[in-house]
Amino acid sequence: MQKRTFASDNYAGVLPEIMEALQAANNGHASSYGADEYTAQAIEKFKSHFGDDIEVYFAYNGTGANVLGLSAITQSFNSILCSELAHINVDESTAPEKFTGAKLIPVPTTTGKITPEEITKRIIRLEDQHHPQAKVISISQTTEYATVYSIEEIKAISAVAKKFKLLLHMDGSRICNAAVSLNKNFASFTRDAGVDVLSFGGTKNGLMFGEAVVFFNRELAKNMKYIRKQGMQLHSKMRFIGAQFNALLANDLWKKPAQHANRMAKLMEEELKKIPSVKITQSVDANGIFALVKPTIIPELQKEHFFYVWNDQTSEIRLMCSFDTKEEEIRNFITKLRALSNA
Amino acid sequence: MQKRTFASDNYAGVLPEIMEALQAANNGHASSYGADEYTAQAIEKFKSHFGDDIEVYFAYNGTGANVLGLSAITQSFNSILCSELAHINVDESTAPEKFTGAKLIPVPTTTGKITPEEITKRIIRLEDQHHPQAKVISISQTTEYATVYSIEEIKAISAVAKKFKLLLHMDGSRICNAAVSLNKNFASFTRDAGVDVLSFGGTKNGLMFGEAVVFFNRELAKNMKYIRKQGMQLHSKMRFIGAQFNALLANDLWKKPAQHANRMAKLMEEELKKIPSVKITQSVDANGIFALVKPTIIPELQKEHFFYVWNDQTSEIRLMCSFDTKEEEIRNFITKLRALSNA
Amino acid sequence: MQKRTFASDNYAGVLPEIMEALQAANNGHASSYGADEYTAQAIEKFKSHFGDDIEVYFAYNGTGANVLGLSAITQSFNSILCSELAHINVDESTAPEKFTGAKLIPVPTTTGKITPEEITKRIIRLEDQHHPQAKVISISQTTEYATVYSIEEIKAISAVAKKFKLLLHMDGSRICNAAVSLNKNFASFTRDAGVDVLSFGGTKNGLMFGEAVVFFNRELAKNMKYIRKQGMQLHSKMRFIGAQFNALLANDLWKKPAQHANRMAKLMEEELKKIPSVKITQSVDANGIFALVKPTIIPELQKEHFFYVWNDQTSEIRLMCSFDTKEEEIRNFITKLRALSNA
Amino acid sequence: MQKRTFASDNYAGVLPEIMEALQAANNGHASSYGADEYTAQAIEKFKSHFGDDIEVYFAYNGTGANVLGLSAITQSFNSILCSELAHINVDESTAPEKFTGAKLIPVPTTTGKITPEEITKRIIRLEDQHHPQAKVISISQTTEYATVYSIEEIKAISAVAKKFKLLLHMDGSRICNAAVSLNKNFASFTRDAGVDVLSFGGTKNGLMFGEAVVFFNRELAKNMKYIRKQGMQLHSKMRFIGAQFNALLANDLWKKPAQHANRMAKLMEEELKKIPSVKITQSVDANGIFALVKPTIIPELQKEHFFYVWNDQTSEIRLMCSFDTKEEEIRNFITKLRALSNA
Repeated sequence: MQKRTFASDNYAGVLPEIMEALQAANNGHASSYGADEYTAQAIEKFKSHFGDDIEVYFAYNGTGANVLGLSAITQSFNSILCSELAHINVDESTAPEKFTGAKLIPVPTTTGKITPEEITKRIIRLEDQHHPQAKVISISQTTEYATVYSIEEIKAISAVAKKFKLLLHMDGSRICNAAVSLNKNFASFTRDAGVDVLSFGGTKNGLMFGEAVVFFNRELAKNMKYIRKQGMQLHSKMRFIGAQFNALLANDLWKKPAQHANRMAKLMEEELKKIPSVKITQSVDANGIFALVKPTIIPELQKEHFFYVWNDQTSEIRLMCSFDTKEEEIRNFITKLRALSNA
Repeated sequence: MQKRTFASDNYAGVLPEIMEALQAANNGHASSYGADEYTAQAIEKFKSHFGDDIEVYFAYNGTGANVLGLSAITQSFNSILCSELAHINVDESTAPEKFTGAKLIPVPTTTGKITPEEITKRIIRLEDQHHPQAKVISISQTTEYATVYSIEEIKAISAVAKKFKLLLHMDGSRICNAAVSLNKNFASFTRDAGVDVLSFGGTKNGLMFGEAVVFFNRELAKNMKYIRKQGMQLHSKMRFIGAQFNALLANDLWKKPAQHANRMAKLMEEELKKIPSVKITQSVDANGIFALVKPTIIPELQKEHFFYVWNDQTSEIRLMCSFDTKEEEIRNFITKLRALSNA
Repeated sequence: MQKRTFASDNYAGVLPEIMEALQAANNGHASSYGADEYTAQAIEKFKSHFGDDIEVYFAYNGTGANVLGLSAITQSFNSILCSELAHINVDESTAPEKFTGAKLIPVPTTTGKITPEEITKRIIRLEDQHHPQAKVISISQTTEYATVYSIEEIKAISAVAKKFKLLLHMDGSRICNAAVSLNKNFASFTRDAGVDVLSFGGTKNGLMFGEAVVFFNRELAKNMKYIRKQGMQLHSKMRFIGAQFNALLANDLWKKPAQHANRMAKLMEEELKKIPSVKITQSVDANGIFALVKPTIIPELQKEHFFYVWNDQTSEIRLMCSFDTKEEEIRNFITKLRALSNA
Repeated sequence: MQKRTFASDNYAGVLPEIMEALQAANNGHASSYGADEYTAQAIEKFKSHFGDDIEVYFAYNGTGANVLGLSAITQSFNSILCSELAHINVDESTAPEKFTGAKLIPVPTTTGKITPEEITKRIIRLEDQHHPQAKVISISQTTEYATVYSIEEIKAISAVAKKFKLLLHMDGSRICNAAVSLNKNFASFTRDAGVDVLSFGGTKNGLMFGEAVVFFNRELAKNMKYIRKQGMQLHSKMRFIGAQFNALLANDLWKKPAQHANRMAKLMEEELKKIPSVKITQSVDANGIFALVKPTIIPELQKEHFFYVWNDQTSEIRLMCSFDTKEEEIRNFITKLRALSNA
């Protein structure tokens, strides 16, 4: 499929620089399972962004990174509070429950973000043996509505976590888009804002495969190597994950695809706003737009530009931009949408 | 590390043809999670080897493929009989137990292979609620001792499975080496010999990442898509797994690396046999050699040619050849070993 | 503690008739694990109430019965829809998640009951590998608010289950109170109303220990003996569970304690209604009353009559009556409450 | 069934003193889930035997006690070394694997006991992420062959545990028979010998239901209340477990049934030794006898005296004595056996 779509940022392929890094790493033998120089260098790159006293474990995919990270910081009688829309709550089958044994407590949201107030209401019956014991708050940055928590919002959630001795997990499958949106470095809205464990996403920002679990408290990672292997997320030819992150985190390469994707989303937003029958439903903070369109035009619109209908009832659609979205594609989409809307 | 080693076939990199296939697949957008043309073509390739009425699910790694396949055919009160040396028994942490809930029953072996007689002895207390209920026999082809089951041996194990209404699973992380060793097509020693579920390995035969779970009885796969997602083994940019298998299974590409690796092992065997103090312990059927050497020479020998000591007590070493092992490396190794042995 | 309380019906002891049955069963040797005559007779008693084509498995407690029953009818990638207040959702630690691997989907409720409309809204994304697959609707009869579903309400929920090919589970830890409340036989609001699997509670109706899982579709129970053993719920001296149910289900003994408890709740309701500052919040259908009282009087009131505060925010209290609640205790409680309310 | 058998000590009923204790506890209301005076007193009794700095958690049955105790001291990537004949390995379905996620490593045995040497051989690959990490040694006292470890034997195993930083678990489902056999107090061969966690069995020594998990290191029990609830082993009317242990551990009541059962086994042994065709296979240390008899006489012998054939191949039978075994029954059995043997 040559055509680019607004379906998902994982429909896009691999950044050329990442492809080159993979090529370059395909050079002779390398120790397997992470004992190679590419992996070592990639970890150093993470340290240059987050500080030295961290632990980094690579995994295959976002679900793997989330579930491994949550496994490392929970026991099976615990609960994990997260947005009712969280990827871990609705898009990872029952992997979190099956692997951790813990319960996910959905927190209601209209913006994708969860609030200290709504979280606090659900931290109940601590020390009561009959009730799942709250242990983790998990937030997504960007959220599933492509909104972005401010640093202050994250700190406020971290304060709740600290108050009740919980840990703060961040699903950062689109963390690069968030960093670009906030125009801040990674550490500012993760470790400095009180995050304990982070899933650092690569695939949605131009990698072929590979995500990272980053621990800002090394003690929390003490069993992580066993958890990762048990979680079927330990790659033998690890150098090929290491090499990708090595490239992505060097020379601000990570910024380029995220900036482009976010910019394309802004363009899309601006154009959509000009169409009276379209209503944008969420703040366009990063690379996704959610909008209400006339239900009748959706099938026709999808013929040329694939995207997902987020909510059948309201005919809310989701338009994701990626590192390779072209201005022209957006303009074509808008033209078509306008034509259909006026029909 | 430029130097090639005899440590493991996963120290080797990626076949050039596979690298090209990855490059070629990096072309525009593709539907994610397996709904792309590369994946569809790869499945067709599997069907050309195994027949049309199969189900193929791609996974990230060998542990993932094994555990997913076993999960699909067991319930948590079952047991799985396998060699005491089986990768699932000793090298996959507790992933099989954790994910399936089932018990692994180790069957003793001196050759890596397990026999109908020893298996049958352990199929006990069927229908007894107190005892784990035998459900699967799992064999590795090639075995962990790099030996290869003959078709007749597999059929004999399959007969045991059928007799007791068990299923037969094959861990084929090195299935290409086995096929080359037997000089038979894949189907002959898998589906035609009674195997129900197969882990078809790619990474050890020159892929970057990716394995396949192949079901010869489609009914057994009916929940597999959920099990794979739950098992954190569903890749978003699946085309990059599909493209690799597509290339590997086309035009007998798979044969080339396996033939080379096996041939290098044969060469190593021949040369080792000429050294009186060395004793080869297992039949060299594929790409690994197990041999007793003088314990005192091991550290010196490992300085230039890394390999693993398989058994500290007996100073048995394991030498694995891979698709990129060079004759010269073997000759250098032999020269060094001879020198040390004579010292 | 001689004093009776309104804390829970499991604060009460054992019915004298049950104690006699236990004594009578303590007579020589009996085969263990359920192969005894008492257990066989108890199963016959269940068949006399529910029909012959059922399967009955005894367990130790309500959590055990619920979790075993749910395990028998789910796979780990499934979800179970239940009231947000359901015992399985809030009072069984994470036993349901840990043991089944499945996800519990909370359905909002103000009465303890869940409705076809709210259930249906949450049966989404069937066949979508990323999302937990809805498989079971679980309702509690009586509910956690001590309300009772009418037969029609249950049939309406069963219709939803059938429409989406789900199964209907009932947590009947207080099923005797429900039967007395409806003045119907057990079958009428369980199997005849479309329930597939029932946890039949004993302990809260005067047994010492023991619950039963009843399957109205025998096929669903085909692995139940293994699931029960694995779930640590198989009693060795099973005759002592069998003997209790044998007595409870004979000669309508089960009605007596439930009728008394329900009657006492009605008396409590009538008396509470006479106190202006008290507001009863739920329909008093069975043996529990939920009421708002002045928060300031609770500590004083609890000094003599223990009960639980159900909701701190609203000062809603829960008053449970049991088979041995005395009229005099209710009158004393009311007198005290009236005095404190007027102070 | 009036007839006593040699099938199992769980075919016997309940000690009269225990029945009285149950009656006495059935007196008014008591707080549920262990917050009652009977449970408190029972815990005190355990402290009088084992010392004050212990934690005691009651469970329903032996499988429950074992699995909860093991859950408290393992993580899912661990392994548990135990006799190949251990109850946890062969008679608890896959409850240990399913609930802990850990792997059981079977240690060979001919006497039911495992030895430091055989255990040590299997403590391998510590710190290797690929391999299950040894964490617990579990021994049964008495063993499944009704043999009894000496204090020295236990201390030697404990030394292995300490050397490798493992924990020592004891399955004491027949601990009273062991104490009587050793003629030592409970502490001497448990906590004083290095045991960390003990399953203290009640049911096989005359209780109706109920076992205890005893932690000699309180830190290990810190999550036990959650683990027990999650493990479906928390009884609501706990006083009825408390009352039984309260009686059993007072005034040396526990000794009486165990002494009798052991004495009956000794008598059986003496008589069997007089029959030339019978060969006793294990040391008769407690209340079980294992013996080879002519296979042809077994069916006839079982007609009047039920017992289990332990090993079909060798026609080894198991004869268990219990607190209510009568001398006359043994003499009848011997008479019959002698007659059949001579026929």
